Amino acid sequence: MIRTPAAFLSEGEVRRVHEASLEILEDVGMLVRNARAREIFAKHGCKVEAGGENVRFPRSVIEQHRAGIPPKFTFRARDPQFDRTVPDDTPVVISGSSAPDMVDPATGLARRAFAADIARIARLVDQLPNYDIFSVSTLADDAPPGFFSVTRLYAALKYCRKPLRISGPPEELDAILKLAHIIAGSESAYRERPFITHHYCPCVSPLTMDYDSTEALIYYAERGLPGHPTLVPNAGLTAPLTLAGTLVQGNAEFLAAVVLEQMVRPGKATIYSSLPTVADMRTGAYAPGAIETGMLFMGVAQMARFYGVPCGGYIGLSNAKVNDAQSGFETGMSGVAALLSGNHLFNMAGLLDALMSFDFAKAVIDDEIVAMLRRIQRGLELTEENFALDVIREVGPGGMFADHLHTLERMRTTGFLSEIADREPRQGWAEKGALDAQGRAMLRVRDILTRDAPSLFSHDVDARLRSEFAGMVAATFAPPEGWTRAPDEALSDRAERRRRRLAQQAEA
Amino acid sequence: MIRTPAAFLSEGEVRRVHEASLEILEDVGMLVRNARAREIFAKHGCKVEAGGENVRFPRSVIEQHRAGIPPKFTFRARDPQFDRTVPDDTPVVISGSSAPDMVDPATGLARRAFAADIARIARLVDQLPNYDIFSVSTLADDAPPGFFSVTRLYAALKYCRKPLRISGPPEELDAILKLAHIIAGSESAYRERPFITHHYCPCVSPLTMDYDSTEALIYYAERGLPGHPTLVPNAGLTAPLTLAGTLVQGNAEFLAAVVLEQMVRPGKATIYSSLPTVADMRTGAYAPGAIETGMLFMGVAQMARFYGVPCGGYIGLSNAKVNDAQSGFETGMSGVAALLSGNHLFNMAGLLDALMSFDFAKAVIDDEIVAMLRRIQRGLELTEENFALDVIREVGPGGMFADHLHTLERMRTTGFLSEIADREPRQGWAEKGALDAQGRAMLRVRDILTRDAPSLFSHDVDARLRSEFAGMVAATFAPPEGWTRAPDEALSDRAERRRRRLAQQAEA
Repeated sequence: MIRTPAAFLSEGEVRRVHEASLEILEDVGMLVRNARAREIFAKHGCKVEAGGENVRFPRSVIEQHRAGIPPKFTFRARDPQFDRTVPDDTPVVISGSSAPDMVDPATGLARRAFAADIARIARLVDQLPNYDIFSVSTLADDAPPGFFSVTRLYAALKYCRKPLRISGPPEELDAILKLAHIIAGSESAYRERPFITHHYCPCVSPLTMDYDSTEALIYYAERGLPGHPTLVPNAGLTAPLTLAGTLVQGNAEFLAAVVLEQMVRPGKATIYSSLPTVADMRTGAYAPGAIETGMLFMGVAQMARFYGVPCGGYIGLSNAKVNDAQSGFETGMSGVAALLSGNHLFNMAGLLDALMSFDFAKAVIDDEIVAMLRRIQRGLELTEENFALDVIREVGPGGMFADHLHTLERMRTTGFLSEIADREPRQGWAEKGALDAQGRAMLRVRDILTRDAPSLFSHDVDARLRSEFAGMVAATFAPPEGWTRAPDEALSDRAERRRRRLAQQAEA
Repeated sequence: MIRTPAAFLSEGEVRRVHEASLEILEDVGMLVRNARAREIFAKHGCKVEAGGENVRFPRSVIEQHRAGIPPKFTFRARDPQFDRTVPDDTPVVISGSSAPDMVDPATGLARRAFAADIARIARLVDQLPNYDIFSVSTLADDAPPGFFSVTRLYAALKYCRKPLRISGPPEELDAILKLAHIIAGSESAYRERPFITHHYCPCVSPLTMDYDSTEALIYYAERGLPGHPTLVPNAGLTAPLTLAGTLVQGNAEFLAAVVLEQMVRPGKATIYSSLPTVADMRTGAYAPGAIETGMLFMGVAQMARFYGVPCGGYIGLSNAKVNDAQSGFETGMSGVAALLSGNHLFNMAGLLDALMSFDFAKAVIDDEIVAMLRRIQRGLELTEENFALDVIREVGPGGMFADHLHTLERMRTTGFLSEIADREPRQGWAEKGALDAQGRAMLRVRDILTRDAPSLFSHDVDARLRSEFAGMVAATFAPPEGWTRAPDEALSDRAERRRRRLAQQAEA
């Protein structure tokens, strides 16, 4: 347990950021492109520019509506054992989402992603123990017009049991719900257990609410279905080139978005989710892997605590194109900074090249990084039994702890037992093939993707989905081209040992 | 600035760890192999076993002597501009020390390290902007018996202007000082500016003080020369297999070591430096790259704050054998955890394979990781000017910040401008050679090591050292075999641009 989170801001500075955000919303306001949103704002006391799109927010309106946000948010799955709640289950980990490309596991080269890739990714996320939620990690380039969202959802829900998160264009929202109802059995069954969490980025910085995502926000809020926004200010391009200014502007945008949610449905649960970045001003490059993103998450966590809202976002992204040291330190450093400062939701993992491409090996490496974050979250476990003063006394100066019962009982639980991080001395490592983290991760990818992946749909549901959405690409899981199950016994044994160990750890 | 450090322990738990440490020292005691140390302990009120080596510490003795430790420690260089003080200059970064092997830059294979390697490493550490202190990174396999320390020191001090840290065997301590006096010009000149900080690991866990390092501790403390211990409990083998027990036992060992320093020289400055680890109990492997080491540093930082002593240690080590994702996330994650919890001294960088081998590329990659830690340390810089409310107002909803004067003024200072982390889109990266972090780091290694490295010794000093220590290996800097200065104009331009940028950043 982390007793005191790391903090950059004093209480006075937290209040100042809040006040400055209110000043912006009151004096400058937001451009609101969606007419329905403008109507809702006007109805609740905001000042809407006559014949224009500018909306100004009296501070009392903001204060009134933000006060009603509940302190928890639950992601639901079809099977309740996979439900996850922030902040209770911190860190709650979501796979990275919506990359247009993927690194082909056979060639190692990036290419467009297709529905069949989503089926494999769904299976991988289902099997990796440290992912809580599957945010559909890629687009599907082969999805026909109008069938984009259902193509992605079909593959995702067919192979992953965990809660699902997705975003979709306004014209496909009805289809998304229809698909959900078919899988749930009925609309009422789905409403009882809405296993899709909807996601939208309604704010285009600076201070603009778009048409499409704002429409999705309203659509789901009206129906009482779970969803949350993500705010994405980019210092130097769409926000001031200071961390302080980016924090303030992003906070104002957050308040505008969640106040709209509350106006549509008072008491709606949400998340202070963001992806604040600083552009690399040498080239204007988008740099979510930069350490400033981790630092901004530290500031956001303090604001979220002030508001009593769970928080997190796209934490642990990397600008690396391959799984090199950069991909490791960018993902790991921002991840630790975000965890130790009190973030709850980690929308990380599996993406390279600044959200542009999904990579199977990255997903496996990130699974281990998340396991390390979970170990931090467990904390030092300071109990009298763990202080082990009697054991220290018994072993005595110059003694050995290795064969003490106290040690034997804890051999698999005290230290996180790494799978990707190799701990052999150099010679043993060389004799076993001198694999780097990428190589070890690919062994695990291969182990998962060459096993059978059962469909989670009954024949009946599958048939109904295919008939209802006859135009979609109905992907079926298959190993990547050219990959067959290894006849290598050693590999199977290794996987078997790992499964047993994970089961033991889960019990402990 | 980090206003509130991350903390696992409540104030009561900090006090409980302290009390439990006192209990261990009072009831169990330490085995003290060094007779001089036993005499000193006895003279100051400890209970020394008649005819044996066990020493028990009344709590009043511990409390009295630990209260006199000063809150700061300064590392001095020959030129005062390179002096660094903890905690004022946090994070103070020392290169990793005393690896027996190095990864040969030409072959990429590990081999024994030699004096000529130390000359190259000294030059690299001198040139990398984020290293503050040079702890001699490798042993010297070609040093003749009796000339081990002077061989290492000669190469190190000849090419690196930064403060130096080293440890040496008892029989070489006089020679170390004689070398220092020759370089300083005289004994009194050296005493005025002791540019070598001495390092020792007097405690062999559990609860044992060895002969050699304890002798070094006494030797330097008697002479009023700067030095500090490092504590190295290893959970499961030399400490209980719990983080709580390892924290307590290591803390008891720390108290025993620094109380001895205070008894020899009251008011001596020191550092709560450690390397607490959890053994990987599958094989007993030493695992300083494990996240538990980063977590234990968080606990140590809280104890050090309680004692008012600067703290840190071997933070950011890795078990990786190559510069892969593992090396990145292990070094980065423990580094951030240690920084955000209030450690001051980061004895990291350059080592692979759990302290076994030095690697030039790792040193350059770690230089960038440290730059990211320094960026965190700078903080969010929450000033009214940085909130930039006027700029947000001027740019307005939907506007652009890129060409605003406020942005132009901050283009090189707000975000850390990475050298190793690549931020190109994939295609641009591929067109420029698709280098991973290892490849980019080697470009920089090559840039530094193929330039001239001037000797920092005058002809006179050099001659006196060679004559005084005629048996030592007097290494002279030369580029790695087969490396010549690149005629590649692009490379030189790139290096030149980097130098200009670093100079600009340093001014800002």
